[in-house]
Amino acid sequence: MRKLEIAYRPFDRLTRVPEGTTLFNAAHWIGLPIESTCGGRGTCGKCKVRVLEGVVEITPADRRHLSEAELDEGWRLACEAEVYEDCACFVPELMRAPKAATMGVNRFVLLEPNVNKVRVRLSPPTLEDHRGDLERLREALDVEGYGLVADLPALRRLPAALRSADYDVTVVLCGEHLVAVEAGDTVDERYGVAVDVGTTTVVATLMDLRAGAAVAVDSNLNGQAPFGADVISRIGRTRTEDGALDELRRVVVKTINDLLANVYAQAGVGRERVYEMVVAGNATMLHLLLGVDPHAIAVSPFVPAFREPLDLAAAELELDLHPQGRVQLLPSIGAYVGADIVAGIQATGLTRKPELRLFIDVGTNGEIVLGSSERVLAGAAPAGPAFEGGHITTGMRAAGGAIEGVVLTDRVELQVIGDAPPRGICGSGLIDAVAQLRLAGLLDERGRLSARAEAADHPLADHLTEEGGVRGFRLAEGVVLTQRDIRELQSAKGAIATGVSALMETMGVGSGDLAEIILAGSFGTYVDPESARIIGLVPPVPVERITSAGNAAGEGAKMALLSFRERDMAFDMPARVEYFELSGWPRLNETFLASLAFPDLATVTS
Amino acid sequence: MRKLEIAYRPFDRLTRVPEGTTLFNAAHWIGLPIESTCGGRGTCGKCKVRVLEGVVEITPADRRHLSEAELDEGWRLACEAEVYEDCACFVPELMRAPKAATMGVNRFVLLEPNVNKVRVRLSPPTLEDHRGDLERLREALDVEGYGLVADLPALRRLPAALRSADYDVTVVLCGEHLVAVEAGDTVDERYGVAVDVGTTTVVATLMDLRAGAAVAVDSNLNGQAPFGADVISRIGRTRTEDGALDELRRVVVKTINDLLANVYAQAGVGRERVYEMVVAGNATMLHLLLGVDPHAIAVSPFVPAFREPLDLAAAELELDLHPQGRVQLLPSIGAYVGADIVAGIQATGLTRKPELRLFIDVGTNGEIVLGSSERVLAGAAPAGPAFEGGHITTGMRAAGGAIEGVVLTDRVELQVIGDAPPRGICGSGLIDAVAQLRLAGLLDERGRLSARAEAADHPLADHLTEEGGVRGFRLAEGVVLTQRDIRELQSAKGAIATGVSALMETMGVGSGDLAEIILAGSFGTYVDPESARIIGLVPPVPVERITSAGNAAGEGAKMALLSFRERDMAFDMPARVEYFELSGWPRLNETFLASLAFPDLATVTS
Repeated sequence: MRKLEIAYRPFDRLTRVPEGTTLFNAAHWIGLPIESTCGGRGTCGKCKVRVLEGVVEITPADRRHLSEAELDEGWRLACEAEVYEDCACFVPELMRAPKAATMGVNRFVLLEPNVNKVRVRLSPPTLEDHRGDLERLREALDVEGYGLVADLPALRRLPAALRSADYDVTVVLCGEHLVAVEAGDTVDERYGVAVDVGTTTVVATLMDLRAGAAVAVDSNLNGQAPFGADVISRIGRTRTEDGALDELRRVVVKTINDLLANVYAQAGVGRERVYEMVVAGNATMLHLLLGVDPHAIAVSPFVPAFREPLDLAAAELELDLHPQGRVQLLPSIGAYVGADIVAGIQATGLTRKPELRLFIDVGTNGEIVLGSSERVLAGAAPAGPAFEGGHITTGMRAAGGAIEGVVLTDRVELQVIGDAPPRGICGSGLIDAVAQLRLAGLLDERGRLSARAEAADHPLADHLTEEGGVRGFRLAEGVVLTQRDIRELQSAKGAIATGVSALMETMGVGSGDLAEIILAGSFGTYVDPESARIIGLVPPVPVERITSAGNAAGEGAKMALLSFRERDMAFDMPARVEYFELSGWPRLNETFLASLAFPDLATVTS
Repeated sequence: MRKLEIAYRPFDRLTRVPEGTTLFNAAHWIGLPIESTCGGRGTCGKCKVRVLEGVVEITPADRRHLSEAELDEGWRLACEAEVYEDCACFVPELMRAPKAATMGVNRFVLLEPNVNKVRVRLSPPTLEDHRGDLERLREALDVEGYGLVADLPALRRLPAALRSADYDVTVVLCGEHLVAVEAGDTVDERYGVAVDVGTTTVVATLMDLRAGAAVAVDSNLNGQAPFGADVISRIGRTRTEDGALDELRRVVVKTINDLLANVYAQAGVGRERVYEMVVAGNATMLHLLLGVDPHAIAVSPFVPAFREPLDLAAAELELDLHPQGRVQLLPSIGAYVGADIVAGIQATGLTRKPELRLFIDVGTNGEIVLGSSERVLAGAAPAGPAFEGGHITTGMRAAGGAIEGVVLTDRVELQVIGDAPPRGICGSGLIDAVAQLRLAGLLDERGRLSARAEAADHPLADHLTEEGGVRGFRLAEGVVLTQRDIRELQSAKGAIATGVSALMETMGVGSGDLAEIILAGSFGTYVDPESARIIGLVPPVPVERITSAGNAAGEGAKMALLSFRERDMAFDMPARVEYFELSGWPRLNETFLASLAFPDLATVTS
C-alpha cells in the first residue's frame, strides 16, 4: 500500500503512514502529543490542527466544533482527519503541561488514562426541562467533551445516584462506558490494575491513575499450573476433560481476584475506586480467561478464536473491580505472539524508533520480534521447557536453592537463590554453566562434554563424571549437569536461534545491523548477556548491546492503563507487525540443525 | 434552527431538514427509499446518490466504496452524506424490487428488517492465512457490506460453530450484533416478535421477517395487574415495598415469556429462530420491564430515567428469544408520552403527511398528538380511570357481560359483549349511554340528569331512578348509570378535551383545520365516533373524519421490526415531536372547567 508523508510543524517532524490514517494517530506513532481529553473520539474538540499543505476534508465533527472561518483557514480536528494525500499541518502547543511518568523501558508516558472522572453539577429537572436522567447526564458530559454509553446495570443505578447526590456528581467513564456516578467530588480517587497473565506467573499492579504510579503489586503462580506447565498441555486438558475449559477459566479468575484483594489491601484502596483493568498475556491465557475454546491454537494451522483488543465488562468476567468496571485485553498478533508480546513491544518502543532491534522473550515458546519504525516481523520458536528447568536432570524453577549463576575458574563458583544449599539449576544457571564449560574448554562446538580421561590435567577434572555411560559435570553435591541436559539446551537455544535467523534472513539483515538485543521476561532479567552470546542463544553483538527489559508485558499493560495514546498504538500493533509463521519457513530444518552447535568462541568473546 | 431544502431527482420530491441530516434519512422521512442492505451504517456501499447541486463533502466511507472518478462526478453514500446547504441529488432506481407489506394504518412498509441473515462460506485457516475466527468472520461480512460486533457469549460459541459447519455458515446479525452462526443455509428462517406492553394488556405478535407477515399472535393481562390498575399505583408499590421493583419486573417478564411460548407453539417456530424483539409500551412499563426505578415519573416535574431507544441483550432481560437475541425498545417522548405513542404515531404516518391530524389514545392517561409533517406537539391528559370502567358504579372492563353499545329510542337497546346478560358497562358503552341521554333530552349541557318527575312524558321515563338522593338511568336490570357516574365521565372527557384544546391553541389551529381525528388503543377501536363527538371527547369535526387506528402501538412495533427505515424514523421521533407539559399550561384550570360541560347538540350532530 502506498504510504503518505505527513509533516508536523513547527516541530519539523515527518512520518509516513498508510492512506486513511488520522493526523492524530500518525502523531502518536512518532511520539508527538496532540491535545485531547476524549481520547480521539471526536467529542472534546481539543485536537485541532491547521492543514497547511494538502487537502484534508471537513468532517461532521469539524462542523460541530469549528467555526466556518476556522474551517476556511484549514483547521481540522486531528482525530477525525484522515489523510489521502501528502500533507503538512501546524500543531498548536499543548494547552496544559500534561503530567507524565517514566514507564516501560525508559519510555516517557503522558498521563491520559482511558478512565476519566468528570465532575458535573446537573440542573435538576423542572416542568420546563423534562429530560430523562440519562440524557441529562449525556448532555452535561457532551458539553465537557465526553461521549456516554450506559449499559443496563449502570442505567438501573442512575436515578438513585443522581437524586441522592442532589445532582452534584462525579461521573466515571472508561472510554465512553458509564462506570459510576459518584456523589460529590471524587475526581482524585482514580485507580486501575495492570495484569500480566503468564502461563506460570500472574502479576497484578494497582496503579494510581492520577499520579501515574504503582501503589501496590503482587504476583502468584497461575492457578492453572496443576493442569499442565505449558499452554499445549492446558489446551490438551480442555479437549480431554468435560468442563475443563470452564475450570481453567475459574482458577485463573481466582488467581487474579486473590491478587486484587491483596493489592487493594496493601494500598488501602477500595474495590469501588478501581475502574479498569488492562490485561496482557499470551493468546492461550486470554482465551482461557474468557472461557473461549483455545484448541485451534494447538493444532496446525494454529489460529486463535480472536486477536482483537476486546473491551469487556469486569462483571461478565467475574473479576473484582468496581461492579461496573471494564476489562481491556490487549490484542494479539498471532496464536503464539500474544498480547504479552504486544505489550512488550510497546514497553520497549521498538516499533517507534529507526534503529533495528531484536526483542526475545525466552520461554517454552520463544517469541521473537525484529524491527524498527520501518518494518517489524514477529514469530515464535518452540524452544521446549529447558529454559524453565524442564527435561533437565536437576532442572528447577528460579526458587530457593536454584543455581542461577555459575563461574568456572580453577574451581566452581555458584550463585544460589536464597540462603540455601544448591539443590538444582534454573535457566540462567544452565546457560551460565554451559557457557562456562565452553570457556573452560570442557565442551566442544558440537556440544560434546569432555570425558575425565581427556581432561585429566584440567583443574576441574574432578567435576567430570560418568554414570551409566552418560557424561556429566558436577556443579555441586547432587547437582550434575549431564550430556543429555546439554543436548536439551542445544535444542532449545537452537530453536530460538533458528527463529532469529529466519526473521533476520527474511528482513535481509545481519547481526552487525542490530542496534540492540532486548531480552524480556523473568528469564531475560536474570540471564547473563555474555553467556547468552557464548552459547549462541542470541546473535554475536557487542555485549553492551544486549539489555534486559524485565517484565516488559506488565510494563506495557501499565502504559496502556495510563495513556490512551499508548493503548491505541498497542491496538494498531497487529496491523503494523508482520506475523511470521516459522513452521512454514522453507529453510527451517537446515537452519535448526546448523543452530544446534555452539559458536566458535573467537566470534563471541570480546 | 435553519432548515435546508433537499430535492430528490428524478422524483421531483422536495423536503426541508435541519443541518447535519443525511441524504438517506431525509429520504426516509418523505417515504422515498434509497437502496441499502446495511441499514445506513456506511458498510454496504449501496446507497450511492449523485449530488447535482450544492456541496456535500467526501467522507471516509465514500473513499472506501467509491472510485476517484465517481467522487469527482458527485457520487456520495447517502447514509453518510450530511447536508449543510441546500442541495439536489439524483437517486438511482432501486436495484431490486424490495418486498413490502401493508402495516399500521394503511402504511406501505418495505421489508428491510434489522435482522439480517448472511450466508458465508469462509476459507478455512491455513499456515499462510492465520487470521483468528472472529476476524475471518468479520472480513467475510465486510465484503458483504455488514459490520460485526460480537459480545462474549457469541465469541464463546464461535470456534465450535465455524468448525462443526466446515466454515459454511449463515450468520445472523441484529444490526451489527452477532446473534448466531448457524450451519449451512438457514437464510429463510428468520423471525422476530413485536410486543406491546400495555398497563392492562400485553400483546405479542410473532412475525416472519422474510415474508413480512404475522404468523401468530397472543395477548394476556399484564401480570402486574394485582399491583395496581394504573401506572401510578404500580410506581407507588415500588416506593412502599422492598423488592417490589424487581417483583414487577419479574411478573411482566413472565407475562411476555408465557406469550412467547404460546406464539412459538402456535406457529411451530423454534425459539432459536427468533432473533429480535421490538417493544412498545408507556415509559413506566418500559422502566419496570428493565427494572429501572420509575418513581420520578410519578412526582413533579415528572421525568423518566431514560427516553432513549435502548438496544439490549434478551438474555440480560431474561426474555426467551434466541439466547443471543436482542431487544429493541422504542424511544419515549416524555414521562407520559411513551414508546407506545411513538409506535402509534409511526403506524399512522402522522409526522410524514402535510395534513393536520389529531391522534388520541384514550386511557387512564389520554395521550394526545397533534401535527403534520410541519410540526408535531404531544402531551398527556390525566383522564382517570372512567374510560376503563373505574370509579363508575357498574363500570367494568370490556369483558363478557359488559354493555359496549347503547341506543335509546323509545326503548333501551343494548349491545353486550359475549352471549351473556348485561352485568356492567365498559368505556365505549358509557360514552354511548351519555351521548344517547343527551340526544334523548334526558341530560342537559351541564351534565344534569332529568328527574323522573321532570320527564314524566318521556318514553324512557321509567328508566330514570333516584336512590339515596342520587339520580340515575337504568340501562338494564342491576345496571344503573348514576349522576355521579356522569360527573366522573365529564371529568374524564374534560381532561382529554382540555389537553386537545391546549395543543390546538398552542399550535394556533381550530377544529376546522383538522383533516382527521385518529382514536387509538382498544378504546379507540370500540368507541362510536359520533358519541365521542356528542359528549365533546373530540373536537366537532364531520364524523367521517374520525377514524380508529386499532392497536396502533402494536402496529408500530411490527413496522419497526420489519423495516430499519421505519425504526430509524421512530428513533428520531423524540427530536421531532415537541413534548407539551399540560400541568404547566397557564390556561389549564379555566379550560378544564369550561370543558366539563357537554357541547351544544346543534354543533355536534350532523
